[in-house]
Amino acid sequence: MNENVLGIIAGVLTSISMIPQLVKVIREKNVEDISLLMLLVLICGLSLWVWYGFMKDELPIILSNSFAVGVNLCLLFCYSIYNKKK
Amino acid sequence: MNENVLGIIAGVLTSISMIPQLVKVIREKNVEDISLLMLLVLICGLSLWVWYGFMKDELPIILSNSFAVGVNLCLLFCYSIYNKKK
Repeated sequence: MNENVLGIIAGVLTSISMIPQLVKVIREKNVEDISLLMLLVLICGLSLWVWYGFMKDELPIILSNSFAVGVNLCLLFCYSIYNKKK
Repeated sequence: MNENVLGIIAGVLTSISMIPQLVKVIREKNVEDISLLMLLVLICGLSLWVWYGFMKDELPIILSNSFAVGVNLCLLFCYSIYNKKK
């Protein structure tokens, strides 16, 4: 199989699997299951993967990790809003 | 920065961020927040990333995604045990 096709399929699958958590948090307005520290660690890690993707010039890595950074920034935003309501 | 060093740091950070969920599930014996479908989608996606890593011969991708597959197989195992207790 072509490497880029494989990477894109892998990226789509791992990206899809992140959506339900974001939908759940937005729908239930409940962030008590989310650890702020781990969210920040994850966003740092994913951002470094994007950087890695640029260094290696690999589009599947850049795209899927950029998407993941976006999802987790949304979670961080939700966290900042809903955590105050406790 | 060396690409492999960057990839390994990125992999360590994204791997660390997965641990708390596994610890929480094991400690609380509660899997009701876990979607079986999404867990399976995620394991498929991560496995394809491992395959991608082998095709590209990139150790950081192979190691971090293999670790993630392991963590999520543990979650799947926990799911199969604790879900019956409902």
